[in-house]
This record gives sequence, C-alpha cells and structure tokens, in this order.
Amino acid sequence: MFKAEKKETPPPRTIGLITDFGLTDPYVGQVRAVLARKAPNCPVVDISHHVAPFNVAQAGFFLAASYEHFPGDAVILAVVDPGVGTDRRIACLEIGNRLLVAPDNGLLTLALNRAWSEVRAYDLSKAMDAPKKVSHTFHGRDVFAPLAAWLALGGRPEGVGREIDPSDLVTRTWSCPEIALGRARGHVVHIDRFGNCVLNLEAGCLGTPRGLRMESPAGGPLAYAVKYADMPEGEPGLLEGSQGFLELAVNQRSAAKRFGLSMGDTVELAWEA
Amino acid sequence: MFKAEKKETPPPRTIGLITDFGLTDPYVGQVRAVLARKAPNCPVVDISHHVAPFNVAQAGFFLAASYEHFPGDAVILAVVDPGVGTDRRIACLEIGNRLLVAPDNGLLTLALNRAWSEVRAYDLSKAMDAPKKVSHTFHGRDVFAPLAAWLALGGRPEGVGREIDPSDLVTRTWSCPEIALGRARGHVVHIDRFGNCVLNLEAGCLGTPRGLRMESPAGGPLAYAVKYADMPEGEPGLLEGSQGFLELAVNQRSAAKRFGLSMGDTVELAWEA
Amino acid sequence: MFKAEKKETPPPRTIGLITDFGLTDPYVGQVRAVLARKAPNCPVVDISHHVAPFNVAQAGFFLAASYEHFPGDAVILAVVDPGVGTDRRIACLEIGNRLLVAPDNGLLTLALNRAWSEVRAYDLSKAMDAPKKVSHTFHGRDVFAPLAAWLALGGRPEGVGREIDPSDLVTRTWSCPEIALGRARGHVVHIDRFGNCVLNLEAGCLGTPRGLRMESPAGGPLAYAVKYADMPEGEPGLLEGSQGFLELAVNQRSAAKRFGLSMGDTVELAWEA
Repeated sequence: MFKAEKKETPPPRTIGLITDFGLTDPYVGQVRAVLARKAPNCPVVDISHHVAPFNVAQAGFFLAASYEHFPGDAVILAVVDPGVGTDRRIACLEIGNRLLVAPDNGLLTLALNRAWSEVRAYDLSKAMDAPKKVSHTFHGRDVFAPLAAWLALGGRPEGVGREIDPSDLVTRTWSCPEIALGRARGHVVHIDRFGNCVLNLEAGCLGTPRGLRMESPAGGPLAYAVKYADMPEGEPGLLEGSQGFLELAVNQRSAAKRFGLSMGDTVELAWEA
Repeated sequence: MFKAEKKETPPPRTIGLITDFGLTDPYVGQVRAVLARKAPNCPVVDISHHVAPFNVAQAGFFLAASYEHFPGDAVILAVVDPGVGTDRRIACLEIGNRLLVAPDNGLLTLALNRAWSEVRAYDLSKAMDAPKKVSHTFHGRDVFAPLAAWLALGGRPEGVGREIDPSDLVTRTWSCPEIALGRARGHVVHIDRFGNCVLNLEAGCLGTPRGLRMESPAGGPLAYAVKYADMPEGEPGLLEGSQGFLELAVNQRSAAKRFGLSMGDTVELAWEA
Repeated sequence: MFKAEKKETPPPRTIGLITDFGLTDPYVGQVRAVLARKAPNCPVVDISHHVAPFNVAQAGFFLAASYEHFPGDAVILAVVDPGVGTDRRIACLEIGNRLLVAPDNGLLTLALNRAWSEVRAYDLSKAMDAPKKVSHTFHGRDVFAPLAAWLALGGRPEGVGREIDPSDLVTRTWSCPEIALGRARGHVVHIDRFGNCVLNLEAGCLGTPRGLRMESPAGGPLAYAVKYADMPEGEPGLLEGSQGFLELAVNQRSAAKRFGLSMGDTVELAWEA
C-alpha cells in the first residue's frame, strides 16, 4: 500500500501496541493479523489493550512510561481514538530513533514532555488515503496497523507526511501539569490494581520536597518516598514509582479509595519552597 | 508425530488462535508452548481466548470476521469444543491458501458461507491418533496444537485425513440465516463491549433496504447506516460494521440493553421489497 | 549488562512467563519490551499473568503444570514476589536443559518435586547487581527480565551465580503434601473457571485408590476418574486432570462452591490401603 523507499532491507523493528480495544472482541487479533501480513518479521509487543475506553490520558501515561524500555528503533502504536471518523490528524513523534504513532488528540504529549533525546514531530494524516478499503469505525486495523507496519519495515515518516513543530501537536489539560515554587497541581492519569494514583508529574520534578502536604482532595501531610516500605503502614505518601511518574500511595491500602479519587481527578500539593 | 512430506522447507506460516480458554488458567500458554516446540519459527496471533464458554456461534463469528486479515497462507485454529471426548470429527477448511481448523461442530460454517475463493473441506479426525499421549480433557493442547503446527510447517490436510464435501460439515441454526424477499431472520452471534449486537447476516446481504423495520424482539423503524454518526443519537439502526456482518446498534447506547438481547437470540427484520 | 561467555551464537531459546501483574497495567508490556531489546530473536510465550496477587502456590502450580510442554531448552521466568525489596534470593532450577527462574520463595518446589530429568539448582542473587538502574518495586522488569534474556541467549547460570543443593531452596507447606498409607492431605493450589480444585498432589501419586473418601472439608465417597464423564452428574470425584495434578471435581458443577473451598485450603483424603 505504501511505496517502498529503500533498496536494502533494514532489520525488522519491534512494534509496540497500546489500545482501548480489550481482549474479548477480535479487534486486537485483527490488528496483529494485519501486522503479521504486512510486516511478517517484526516482533509485536502488547503494552496494554485495557486502556479505559476513550481515556487518552491513561494511554498517554502508558506510552510515556513504556517506550524507553523498547529497542532503540521500535515503532510504538497507540490507538485510543474518540475522534475516529472526524478529521483529526494522525501524529508521529520521533524520539531518538523510536517512532511513536497515535491520533493527534494529546496522547503523545506526556511522552514528548519527558523526552531527553532529539525529538521530531510529523503529521501523517496522508496515511488515511493509502489503504484501498477503510472501514468507518476501525482505523486501528485499516489505517494505523498498515502505517505502523510500513514504518517498522524502514519507511520514513516524511514518506507519508510532513514534519511539523512538536509544539503544534494537540495538548490537553493533563499534558501540562502546573508546577510552581512550593505548589503543584496534577491529574490522576492511572489507578493501578493496588489503588495507587499515578499523577501526570514526572518523578523528580518536585526535587526532594520538605514539608510535603496534600491540599486537595484532602488536606494533610504526605511522606515522600522511593519505596512503599519507607511509608508507615496506612499512611499516605508521594512515591517515585517504577513508572517514572509520581504516585499518590497509601502503604498497604488503596489511595484511590482513601481519597475517593478517580481517573482524571485533580490533586493539589504544597511543600516548603 | 506427523511424518514430513516435503523435502524443501516451506516458509513458516502464521498461526491464528481462537479459544474459550480465557487467559487466567495456563491453558493458552500450554497451547502456545506446544506450538513453540513443534513450529518454532511460526508467528502466533491470538484472535480471542474470551469466547463465552462452549459458544460455538461466537467463535464462528470471530473466525469469519478475522481470517481474511491474516497472511494468505495462515493456519487458523479455533477450539471451542463442547464435544471433547466424544467422537466428533476434526474439520478443516481450505479457503484460497488459508487453512481453518476446528472441531466439526458448526464453527466453520459462517466462514464457509462468506468464502469467495475456492474452498475445500477435509476430515482430519485421524489426527487424534497421532500424538503419543492425549489427555481426555485437553485436546486443544494435545491434538489441535500439534496438528496446527504440522500444517503450519507445510503439511497438507490430505496427509492426515481425507477431502470431504464442504456441505458435509456440521451446520447449526445460526449457520443458515433466513433471507427472503423483504424479510430476514438472524441470530445474535456476538455482543461487543458497546452493546452492539452482531447478527449472522453478512454486510450487504440485504442490499440497501428501504423502509427497514425490526419486527422482533421489538417493532419499529431501523436506520440503515455505515457509521454510527449516520444514526440520530439514541435511535436504533442496522450498521454495516467493520467486521463484515450487520450489527443492530443504537447510537451512543447499548442495543443489547435497549432490546433485552443476549447471544443466541433471534432478530426479525422486514423492509420494502 | 552481563558479559558474553561464548563465541558461537547458540540458537535463541523460547522464554516463558508467569506473573501476577495482570494485563491492564503496562507492566507485562515493559517486561516484554526489555526481552525484545535484550533477546530480540527469542520467542516469548505467556503462560499466565493472572496469578492471584502474591499467590506463590498458584504460580508454582502453573509452572509445574506447564514447563514440560515447552521446547527442551526453554527459559521460564516466574515472578510472583511478595519479598521484592527484601534480601530474598533469586533461584534457578535446571531440569534437563530447561531453566526455571524465580524468586526463592517456594515457587519452584512443585516443579522440583515432579522433575524426572537431572536437576541442578542455582542461587542467582548476584543478578541483582548487574543492571545499572533498578527500581525498588519492579524487579520483574529491571532484574528478572534482563536475567532471563541473558540465559535465553546462552548464558550459563554459573556465570551469574553458584550451584546450590536443590534441597536448599525455600519450601512451603504446600510444597510438601503429606501422603501415607491410605491417607493424604493436600492443599488447593488453583481453582479453574469451572470450579475444579487442583490439589498439590501429582496425578498417580495415590495409585488407583479403592474406597476413596474425602474426610475434610466434608466427609463422603469420591469417585476416582480420568475424565468428567466417568463421574455421575452432580457427584464429586478426584480427577486425574490434564495438568498432571489431582483435581477435586463435581461433574457439571463447581467443586469449590459445593465444598466452600478457596485457594490455600486443606483437603484430606482416605482410601483402603
């Protein structure tokens, strides 16, 4: 469907997948079938297909937390796409040699914020025109999967789109946590199965705060910790978790239950500046 | 276990999997372990392992909706097998160069109905005799996985069975939707996570019906649409979905809840002939 | 991270995975991303990621029931690790040419008990020192995955640890079922989706018992069967299941519900000796 550009065959690149399709319907299987057909030698790694339906922030966190663990030339496709069927763009970030592909709906911004390597951004909306037959409701299979396969086989983003300024990508409230001297406001982007509430605040972004307190949704002191054992049992704390973001946690309890937090909620923090 | 027939090694074929084993028990892992042992270079793609237990119709829909997205020489194994331990046959369909393998319990008929390429059918029950050790309860691992591996490595169905007439395969009520002039009766073969009710009626099989109505389970007009946006919010319609079958849908609502539909239920439609 | 030891490249070994991470959080995806980065040609097979949180016995059963189905040189990694962050050891069993890697918390003992081939054991705790950066909470990704990758590429356990006596591995109550003349006491290590209760008693370890009875949690006769059909409907029995262990089952019913059994519970059996 896309024209080959190179004469030498580059080594097959690993393809990572994030979706909100779940694993009951055959949708993920059809995406992987297309990848097996179009990029038969590229390994595929599922990051998660259990993003809450249409929850772009959660998908953005999964992507930002995971992409650095992949091979240096991986192609990672994240399809959480409330705007399917509208004229939303298809976006691509190139961070080092990794390519991150998603609808341009804010999904890429958490990854962009924390990128240390050189970053380029692309508008790949032209990929919509490439497939012969596109369903109205399943672009993950009919547009994104062929695009990811083409990139994984060595296709360059410029070959199916144009470079844009990374700041031109769609951003959302949760893309831009507010951090000031002694105060920060974050959003809950994920609640893990222990009830830990992951915030859109990168680990380390507060330094090592003294006198840390939560101001909202409840007032009170927070321990600052790098492991659960550093927090007294039943006490709340802010944890530099394994995912690279700060987590509101209660040792051996559910922070989500304790503070009545759901995904998308706001958390306000204060400390001695 | 099966004798090799060819001298040259054919390229490894992709193996697709559909089961009702779920992903908690280690059963799918053991099937894949056998595939890794016997067909080490063949990629494996899970279509779904969350078929409702023993729901042959749902597995048949997953298969019919998915096989065409696979590589042209894929081997797809579907094991939903209420008759394990009885003398039910093992069946195989060859559609183009793809091989579909399943217990002969009706699972293959939806795929057969919509096949455009040349079709051959085989009785592969002899594969039961090949493994040295077969459990009484887990033919998916002990019989079907070695068989799929052997086919994926280039084995021909004739090598472990005999060709039969495709019409000789077991059929079920839901294999044979009733379509007449201005009237159709279908069965719900799948309810997706949005509550859309997939019918065993192929997209396009009604043409573009004017004056479409549902007669049962409730009376009333139905929009005919190719995307959700074409239906007014909260209104029911018949959708040509991405899976190649007609779906009873309510825009932004659950059609299953609205009409009290469960898998296996009957839906009657009428239109101006 | 680990030094290569060999000059010739050995064939890539299959890697099997068992965890209690679930498939919603991106943790399994990150483990597999690390494997894709460090052992790019090694196939990976998920056995189950739905071990009940911290349930070492269930993981031990999944491992013991599954490892023999893998290729003869597979590396199987099982990470259920309530002791993460403590000084628990990392253990490895070599059964034939397969390598089984897990925290040294009893997870390996069911597999050890039923091993027929030659067995060696290793303490690989030194692998903790190898990675440059180790999170406090996610050793599955940061320690175990790189270790499994290194072994799958041909690394020898002696290269990152030392051989120990297999009897030196941590054992648990459920590692050591009590079997005497005419009496046995086992533990429920898994309840499958049909409510069958898998015991830590290997299939065949009672011979073919006559006059079999359950003494606890309820008294009464038990059929001894190799398939469900051999038990009258609604009657309880002890089944030589497909997993290589004895299962307390009720034909077409849930044994767990019938006898109020949960994982970890004790079952006492008696028969005519």
